[in-house]
Amino acid sequence: MLKEGIRVMGTAEVLPERIVDTAEVAALCGISEEKALQRTGVRTRRWLSDHEDPLLQGVAAAEQAIRAAGLEPADVDLVINASGTPMQAIPDGGALIAAELGLRGRFAYSVHATCISFLVALQQAAFHLGSGRADHVLIVSTEAGSRGLDFGQPESSILIGDAAAAVVVGRPERPDQGIVASRFSTDTHGIRDARIPGFGSRRHVGDTVGRPEDHVFDMKGLNLLRGAINWFPPFLESVRPGLSTSAEGIDRIIPHQTSRAGMELMSRFWGWEKMVVTLGEVGNTIAASIPLALHRADLKPSETALLVGTGAGTHYGAMIVRW
Amino acid sequence: MLKEGIRVMGTAEVLPERIVDTAEVAALCGISEEKALQRTGVRTRRWLSDHEDPLLQGVAAAEQAIRAAGLEPADVDLVINASGTPMQAIPDGGALIAAELGLRGRFAYSVHATCISFLVALQQAAFHLGSGRADHVLIVSTEAGSRGLDFGQPESSILIGDAAAAVVVGRPERPDQGIVASRFSTDTHGIRDARIPGFGSRRHVGDTVGRPEDHVFDMKGLNLLRGAINWFPPFLESVRPGLSTSAEGIDRIIPHQTSRAGMELMSRFWGWEKMVVTLGEVGNTIAASIPLALHRADLKPSETALLVGTGAGTHYGAMIVRW
Repeated sequence: MLKEGIRVMGTAEVLPERIVDTAEVAALCGISEEKALQRTGVRTRRWLSDHEDPLLQGVAAAEQAIRAAGLEPADVDLVINASGTPMQAIPDGGALIAAELGLRGRFAYSVHATCISFLVALQQAAFHLGSGRADHVLIVSTEAGSRGLDFGQPESSILIGDAAAAVVVGRPERPDQGIVASRFSTDTHGIRDARIPGFGSRRHVGDTVGRPEDHVFDMKGLNLLRGAINWFPPFLESVRPGLSTSAEGIDRIIPHQTSRAGMELMSRFWGWEKMVVTLGEVGNTIAASIPLALHRADLKPSETALLVGTGAGTHYGAMIVRW
Repeated sequence: MLKEGIRVMGTAEVLPERIVDTAEVAALCGISEEKALQRTGVRTRRWLSDHEDPLLQGVAAAEQAIRAAGLEPADVDLVINASGTPMQAIPDGGALIAAELGLRGRFAYSVHATCISFLVALQQAAFHLGSGRADHVLIVSTEAGSRGLDFGQPESSILIGDAAAAVVVGRPERPDQGIVASRFSTDTHGIRDARIPGFGSRRHVGDTVGRPEDHVFDMKGLNLLRGAINWFPPFLESVRPGLSTSAEGIDRIIPHQTSRAGMELMSRFWGWEKMVVTLGEVGNTIAASIPLALHRADLKPSETALLVGTGAGTHYGAMIVRW
């Protein structure tokens, strides 16, 4: 029945110092606080100050998660950077995090599936643990979406917050501990509905510098929502029959915190009671969103969680995990 | 003995139209052609023209690899973008490639471990095939390094070429077909020796636009070489005892094409005879380098190949694969 045995050994979150309330962002966007709140459901979010570095935020979260797991950095065999935006082009964030942790001779890499990068990394951690290639896997998601906002587009600017979260995963202690079901699907309907066209090899460096509009996040929320309304239920049924209408046997739901509308869509499937909601306090923190909610859920042994989300692409991912 | 069963079903390469000879690059760098040739061993390379898009180059390679495998795009379950530089920040290149191929409801994501991204993706393909989560995995590496060169730094500018390569992997047909051994290690000694600091969340978008020097590749080749001289032999021994001094039982060696000095270091381990060398013709094509050499190697059933390389980070990867 179990697909892969894993055990979440430690979790942590690190938030930027500065709390930004919605009145401040609404003013930057030239809309009313009331309208901003109503649209997104985000009351506050953190934004990195200039002196803060998403790499060091991620490393701080990593150090806390490693301690929470009862380990030392040197016990980590594999570091997976699972951030929805790169920290820099080269080297990848996995190597950057490993270097800051003082690790040498462990394996490190980055995975990128936008907002569900953490789920993809958790699946890969399970593969590495199961094949005997690692004993302890560190996954880090660190986001600085505030550095690429377009205040001309309130619907995305009001939504995005910065955060880092980290999770340490090891081998199971019980035979029923681990991934019960998991599935990923990329429905490319939304390929142009959430994007930052710049920061990559499709633009010449000269053009990039001259086109600041290519460097900011552009989102068409209504298109994304319409896509999710069509795609999410059959996707959930493919994870486990009945999952689109019932959370039976699931104790907690750890969703990506997309937006008020996105969370309301999920509440239609499962109600609000089991759902961990951080959106109002920290906003949509991109790939850090799921591990941050996971940290706050503080799951107990033998509880079952549904980790679920969507990401620009449009990626869909869901894992049922027994703690 | 076999770690994971896989079968390489189809391979392809797509090069940009324009052939750039070393005299042209040497002139851009203000050094002599002779010196440029002597340093790097690169006689020609391809550079993308403005109308060419690394995404579409990668998609063209993907279509050819799928045909070579005797499949249709719709047969692909999983698309892994394994490029050393992102094509754009969001969505990730996996989703972009899947969208261009017209795929819906397959899984797509990106992996980034700089120049050894393809090897990491091949390992992940094996995990997905082995766990029954995919039947046919498409891996695409597409690079446009020419768009981020600093002509003030000849040693990197002369080295880099653009290319796309793709590989389709499926389940084995024989019990001895697949990954015999694989290992990855990130020795962070070289974290600052090959880098592009920009294009990411560590810089505010405003700073990024104003600092073109952050967007170009900076390499300290001698440091990287010194690191590799120390780190490569023990790493190879950890893959398979004796591998740092002998290629016994290996028919072909498919190395990342780092530089003349890097290739010469590898020739000290295994000689030149079995090694596929593309450096002189196409330069260092970053993560496309290994799958491109693999395409040209045209391996036959039951042959054994060593896929091996280093990447900025410094990542080290090696896989012994029986065809």
